Amino acid sequence: MIQLSIIGSGNVAQHLISAFLQAQKSGAAIELVQVYSRKPESLAYLLDAATITNDFHALRPADLYLIAVSDDAIASVTAQLPFSHRLVAHTSGSRNLEELQDNNRKGVFYPLQTFSKSRAVNYNEVPICLEAQNTSDYELLEKVAKSISNKTFAIDSEQRKALHVAAVFVNNFVNHLYQIGNAICKEHQVPFDILKPLIKETAEKVMTLAPSEAQTGPAKRADQKTIEQHQEFLTDANQRKIYETLTQSILDHGKKL
Amino acid sequence: MIQLSIIGSGNVAQHLISAFLQAQKSGAAIELVQVYSRKPESLAYLLDAATITNDFHALRPADLYLIAVSDDAIASVTAQLPFSHRLVAHTSGSRNLEELQDNNRKGVFYPLQTFSKSRAVNYNEVPICLEAQNTSDYELLEKVAKSISNKTFAIDSEQRKALHVAAVFVNNFVNHLYQIGNAICKEHQVPFDILKPLIKETAEKVMTLAPSEAQTGPAKRADQKTIEQHQEFLTDANQRKIYETLTQSILDHGKKL
Repeated sequence: MIQLSIIGSGNVAQHLISAFLQAQKSGAAIELVQVYSRKPESLAYLLDAATITNDFHALRPADLYLIAVSDDAIASVTAQLPFSHRLVAHTSGSRNLEELQDNNRKGVFYPLQTFSKSRAVNYNEVPICLEAQNTSDYELLEKVAKSISNKTFAIDSEQRKALHVAAVFVNNFVNHLYQIGNAICKEHQVPFDILKPLIKETAEKVMTLAPSEAQTGPAKRADQKTIEQHQEFLTDANQRKIYETLTQSILDHGKKL
Repeated sequence: MIQLSIIGSGNVAQHLISAFLQAQKSGAAIELVQVYSRKPESLAYLLDAATITNDFHALRPADLYLIAVSDDAIASVTAQLPFSHRLVAHTSGSRNLEELQDNNRKGVFYPLQTFSKSRAVNYNEVPICLEAQNTSDYELLEKVAKSISNKTFAIDSEQRKALHVAAVFVNNFVNHLYQIGNAICKEHQVPFDILKPLIKETAEKVMTLAPSEAQTGPAKRADQKTIEQHQEFLTDANQRKIYETLTQSILDHGKKL
């Protein structure tokens, strides 16, 4: 039985906690022994009070401490851990293994998904990117990860940085484009709902086609007439700038082929 | 029984033809009487030769002619139709009703979806945006649209232009961001597959949440440290330009709230 503690109570922490509680119920060989939170009340809906502490010195021995706090807090939180030689892993996509303090063994346990408080996630499908300093720690991380997900990957800090940047493009920026699409619809009294099947199919397409094969539209066709009509249509300077930047990039990609 | 002819043999035409053939089989009150194609052989896999013509003068009477050709060809194709006072509708998102010649009654039948030759589409879920010059023509378009889709909308030419621009943002540009994500993964030997659950969830999220609520990431948090790390990480000038343009837009949106 692997004993596990989680430090943090934000979005990522809460989704991890419920995934591990579910795994425990289903008979996985892991036990969530404790959660550290500065605000224990925020976890009351998930855990009974005895499992939550707001005192680092009350942390009991465990095989793994998962640090699910904001990126900037990783260093200071791990500096406060009053023990050493134990396995401590952060859950950040953008920080190195070295962000963790030297007194403990280091690991990374990065679930690559977008987590919102108001939305359940099927953790089975969440890729978990793992890194450790030695094989036995890696194997432990892998066992823990496999208890909640079918998809685990060995990813070093440099690769993780690439994944994190790529994730910003395919998630943060994509969602921002949805927001602009929504704004254009609102301005012209068209329901955003009309675009939803297109949004879904656009994502579905790249599950099987390479993005370069799936590309369509006026920029892909170098259809200058439609591009100019769109530029005229967009009165918002910021929307036009994004339109022009991305159109130019698609045109340039076309030329390279 | 509504009699229908399709003019064109590209992506949109082929998807429409197979949707109408299926509707016909399922007993819908429509009949696909004829298809015009300059290259009849490209449709041989869908239709028998008697149903295809490459001569405008051989077009038989029909209640509706759907023009599914490239945007730039709409005017010249409809100018060649050797009849008048019949209902002719184009299928373009970016062109006005007026693009059609005056000798026939005009309509628009715009299926808002991304069509690829290599991928089947569930037409039931494709929103069809309709426009006509009078009520009876609109009702006919609606009957035809409802034979293949559950989602029909009355959309005038100005609204359709807005939808088409918005579709460029949520489809063409989004797919291009997938392409950049893929390129970053390739460069750093990370499988693009790791990003696929994120891509799917990003699209799924806005089915129920407003895009502004679904936004996450360093720009949303105004996390300058991570933003700077990403800028340093990106060595490709074009990728960095897109990163900076979209990050600035998310930061500016945050300030407006």
